Amino acid sequence: MPDTRIKVGVVGASGYAGALAAQLINRHPHFELAYVTARAEAGQRLGDLHPRTRVHLQLTEFDPDVPVDAAIVGYPHGAAAPAVAALRERGVRVIDLSADFRLQDDEVYREWYGEHGAPQLFGTAVYGLPEFYREDIRGADLVAGPGCYPTAALLALVPLARAGLIGGTVVIDAKSGVSGAGRNATDTTHFVSANEDLKPYKVAGHRHRPEIEQELGHDVLFVPHLAPMSHGELDSCYVPASREITPGELREVYADYLMEPFVELIGRPPGVLEVRETNDCRLSVHYDEHTGQIMVFAAIDNLWKGTASQAIQSLNLMFGREETEGLLS
Amino acid sequence: MPDTRIKVGVVGASGYAGALAAQLINRHPHFELAYVTARAEAGQRLGDLHPRTRVHLQLTEFDPDVPVDAAIVGYPHGAAAPAVAALRERGVRVIDLSADFRLQDDEVYREWYGEHGAPQLFGTAVYGLPEFYREDIRGADLVAGPGCYPTAALLALVPLARAGLIGGTVVIDAKSGVSGAGRNATDTTHFVSANEDLKPYKVAGHRHRPEIEQELGHDVLFVPHLAPMSHGELDSCYVPASREITPGELREVYADYLMEPFVELIGRPPGVLEVRETNDCRLSVHYDEHTGQIMVFAAIDNLWKGTASQAIQSLNLMFGREETEGLLS
Amino acid sequence: MPDTRIKVGVVGASGYAGALAAQLINRHPHFELAYVTARAEAGQRLGDLHPRTRVHLQLTEFDPDVPVDAAIVGYPHGAAAPAVAALRERGVRVIDLSADFRLQDDEVYREWYGEHGAPQLFGTAVYGLPEFYREDIRGADLVAGPGCYPTAALLALVPLARAGLIGGTVVIDAKSGVSGAGRNATDTTHFVSANEDLKPYKVAGHRHRPEIEQELGHDVLFVPHLAPMSHGELDSCYVPASREITPGELREVYADYLMEPFVELIGRPPGVLEVRETNDCRLSVHYDEHTGQIMVFAAIDNLWKGTASQAIQSLNLMFGREETEGLLS
Amino acid sequence: MPDTRIKVGVVGASGYAGALAAQLINRHPHFELAYVTARAEAGQRLGDLHPRTRVHLQLTEFDPDVPVDAAIVGYPHGAAAPAVAALRERGVRVIDLSADFRLQDDEVYREWYGEHGAPQLFGTAVYGLPEFYREDIRGADLVAGPGCYPTAALLALVPLARAGLIGGTVVIDAKSGVSGAGRNATDTTHFVSANEDLKPYKVAGHRHRPEIEQELGHDVLFVPHLAPMSHGELDSCYVPASREITPGELREVYADYLMEPFVELIGRPPGVLEVRETNDCRLSVHYDEHTGQIMVFAAIDNLWKGTASQAIQSLNLMFGREETEGLLS
Repeated sequence: MPDTRIKVGVVGASGYAGALAAQLINRHPHFELAYVTARAEAGQRLGDLHPRTRVHLQLTEFDPDVPVDAAIVGYPHGAAAPAVAALRERGVRVIDLSADFRLQDDEVYREWYGEHGAPQLFGTAVYGLPEFYREDIRGADLVAGPGCYPTAALLALVPLARAGLIGGTVVIDAKSGVSGAGRNATDTTHFVSANEDLKPYKVAGHRHRPEIEQELGHDVLFVPHLAPMSHGELDSCYVPASREITPGELREVYADYLMEPFVELIGRPPGVLEVRETNDCRLSVHYDEHTGQIMVFAAIDNLWKGTASQAIQSLNLMFGREETEGLLS
Repeated sequence: MPDTRIKVGVVGASGYAGALAAQLINRHPHFELAYVTARAEAGQRLGDLHPRTRVHLQLTEFDPDVPVDAAIVGYPHGAAAPAVAALRERGVRVIDLSADFRLQDDEVYREWYGEHGAPQLFGTAVYGLPEFYREDIRGADLVAGPGCYPTAALLALVPLARAGLIGGTVVIDAKSGVSGAGRNATDTTHFVSANEDLKPYKVAGHRHRPEIEQELGHDVLFVPHLAPMSHGELDSCYVPASREITPGELREVYADYLMEPFVELIGRPPGVLEVRETNDCRLSVHYDEHTGQIMVFAAIDNLWKGTASQAIQSLNLMFGREETEGLLS
Repeated sequence: MPDTRIKVGVVGASGYAGALAAQLINRHPHFELAYVTARAEAGQRLGDLHPRTRVHLQLTEFDPDVPVDAAIVGYPHGAAAPAVAALRERGVRVIDLSADFRLQDDEVYREWYGEHGAPQLFGTAVYGLPEFYREDIRGADLVAGPGCYPTAALLALVPLARAGLIGGTVVIDAKSGVSGAGRNATDTTHFVSANEDLKPYKVAGHRHRPEIEQELGHDVLFVPHLAPMSHGELDSCYVPASREITPGELREVYADYLMEPFVELIGRPPGVLEVRETNDCRLSVHYDEHTGQIMVFAAIDNLWKGTASQAIQSLNLMFGREETEGLLS
Repeated sequence: MPDTRIKVGVVGASGYAGALAAQLINRHPHFELAYVTARAEAGQRLGDLHPRTRVHLQLTEFDPDVPVDAAIVGYPHGAAAPAVAALRERGVRVIDLSADFRLQDDEVYREWYGEHGAPQLFGTAVYGLPEFYREDIRGADLVAGPGCYPTAALLALVPLARAGLIGGTVVIDAKSGVSGAGRNATDTTHFVSANEDLKPYKVAGHRHRPEIEQELGHDVLFVPHLAPMSHGELDSCYVPASREITPGELREVYADYLMEPFVELIGRPPGVLEVRETNDCRLSVHYDEHTGQIMVFAAIDNLWKGTASQAIQSLNLMFGREETEGLLS
């Protein structure tokens, strides 16, 4: 009997997201981790760099010619596009975790990120939010993994937008753990700087705003905050309602989530700890009669549902596996 | 030469706020800590219960007949009013840290707190925010210390209200450290529950909302969040501007703060760590052209400027001392 | 085809250890979670109390007559013994997580714990440390799960004892995260007390000392410390060597661990984060020529290898499953 | 009346220790902060780099010709010696926070640190632990501030050594917060690495060992651990007693500390939080009859009593001020 396991490489596995993607593929019953790459850390074992991955493969230099069925690319914005192009030329199906293929409008891309590294592929990716693009992802060769903030914000807000309930500027006050700032050691990520602190950042405009607006179809004021925790992300969304609405009607707006394996509408505001190291998004929705505002709170693990495990969810869809496979422990 | 130091008692010194008030009085050059009281912990030395106070006085049962010039009352809402009344009857000048005397409308009080414990005094207190009520505090016999959230929110928003710049519902997304939940050991304050978590609470209405609205004169949507840190509070305020405004004009709106010893408008969003264990409030203000919203971020230490050190600031005013005395270390 | 899955109940599933045991059984491919019990929380769903368990069963009152193949008992010391006895009378195979069946000497038990609640069973349990009692566990009907501190300490020290290398009093300086103090909300477990603190406790004698000495056959000075983290335990062990020894010889002493699926001797001191939420124990061993002391550092997750996942490891052995089943994610 | 305040410069004020020393001098009633220097950060205001210092002076390049009465040097080991020499040549009295002048044996220095940068001054400094060298410090022109670990360890152990109670190898299991690793952003100090972790480091020999042994006159096994907190240090010391001893006798050994303003022997093990941001050292001492070991636990704030505030304590002595001046808030 032939080995029918799907071979998956992880390009850029030294960062938090790539390393977790490698870990999840490695323990997946039907995917096989074919390789893990890194630049500065090539030669080290992934498990020495990130012990909890339990991946004993050695990090290698990226070589697009190594034959695999799929690859997850964990490079930074800008660096990802050429690697994705090289893989696509060889027929490899790709999930890119960077922002390089999330936007559809090339002018917006240029404004926030500069020149694109693979313009021939720009606009060809499916936006990798399975809850809204499930069927497109099944057939996709190139999936753009959403940003962590947009994942939570869109799961929180798209049902309201579809129901016509957004009646003004949406305010998204988002809070992220420090892993969201990446593995680079900086003044910001130093323990003594981040511990016992909490502060807004990039208030003049964060790159995730245009991504949210593209998918939501409404203007948003998006303000991220750095919170003193390793994992976790909470998007607190404030929406001027277009009309009065009852709690029952509000819940009805989110009724589709009853069928979603990883999204749960709960009756109290969610905390990030309850979804830590899971692919789950937990939401609550409330109507404030006093001000006519709808509040939606969405909690995810920024590295899991916000990045790496959501990529595995898409990979399951792309290769005809159960969407939840390898993600339920 | 007679001892001219002012004698101050702290009623309810076993909680975080009362204990800190006692510590600040104890180290103050012109106040003398006359007594510290507690119920369950009477008989213990305050310094054994709260080592960092370095206060060796024994906690006693409350006795309003002990002669003092002033008292700070650190009782919970409802329990404070009768103690305040007993002290006022004996001519003691009082700063009450509870909510019992903050509101001016007795129906609003009843709606949020129930029957008042000293109706004869209701409405007679000065709201203890020195930046806005400095002169009234100087002559006051009863000062109602503001809540920690309102302190930051009002310092952030009152200048905008006075300038007529608030053009719609104000959203206040507030984040507090766990000390804001008090010294009671509960499931919420357990280290394993709070650590690495971040979540909204009391989203259906927090008692600080009517207090903010009373002082601001505008409706607000106020949503507090519990953050995994001991101290600190950040109020992120989102205000639909009544008109377009330039950054320079916005700064001008806050120009009065240049004269304030404890309030500083800075050019980047403040974090809570930089004001930890100080009486300072640090603010930044920004205009988002994209959505026409004004953002104001205000950081304080919830136990210091938010409660206990702000009370000392008022006490300095009440007794003709320099406003900053004992608060600048 | 009959259902061959093994039915397992968890008695006392509202605490951290019992809840985790229930979670691990629930996701195990060959065990079926038959019931979860609690006293105060009966009627609630386990997943509402401990969201990350993802266990939707309702907590019920303990009823030993519910037919199961095995039960894990998560009751406190003293309360466990009668429940264990009731289950054993009905032929249920039991893993007890308390200290009630760990000791072999009933006088020692009485000294540290008082009267035993099921004296007829005292001394009949197998000590549930699979690395040293694997064969006994396979055939056991009653397994006493080791304490979290002894698990790490014995994995660190037994090889030295067997090699005759312990030449004097062993000092064990142990550090545990706050979950080791249990789910009860107390002054000690309050976030504001525990955060940014680190302190020794029970220095006059901790109940884990006699347990370690029983299994080690040597006197130890055991001093636990509470550290500001949720999970994790590090036992730092200092052993006067009975003779000079080279690094190579020292590693040889631990050579059996090469065959162990969950114990790994590494070349640098381990940290607790790298074994978080795993059944792994990571150790390092060093010889200090300057003082003639051997140092052994052992890191585990106190709730996993220290308690609940180690119980699943034993349960796998008792029911003839692969020892690692359900534990490798 | 002439200005009699003593002018003090801080050389190397961009690190945690130098910045805190500058803050403490700045708020001191009789010292005047003359300058603060830094290399990479020259041109910035100290208060922008370290907001809580509230020091508005601009960081400048080091210039030994600027006239001051004293200087605190916060340079790294090796870099400090030449700066100290330049200052001493100009008659400036110096407290050096580095290790460059702590050791008395130049061979030991060379073994651990390499060539000395100012050999003409080697061995001329007074060891800046006021509790043991008070009189020498009063007259000193060059004081070597002790390391943070030795400060706690020596306060814990010297009384035992003087009483002849040390009967074998002393084990010091030390735990430090992350600020002890300095302000450099590294993999080790990254929030995501350090948070929820606890691990030993430099187990093959830490530079503080020879310093402790020099002052103690006994061999020690010194093992530092990194703990997930910003501030704080706990030295847990295990000493084979040279004879049996009663608790009363043990307390008697530490009786001199009754006269010490900053050292307190307490009846329970101390935690680091209770001495946070103070110049205090809190100790407890216990005798374990079971093993004949004396245990001493000493808690300090590594940046305060462990470094910067202890330097102010020495500076007070050097200039004839009250030893506690500026240190009691």
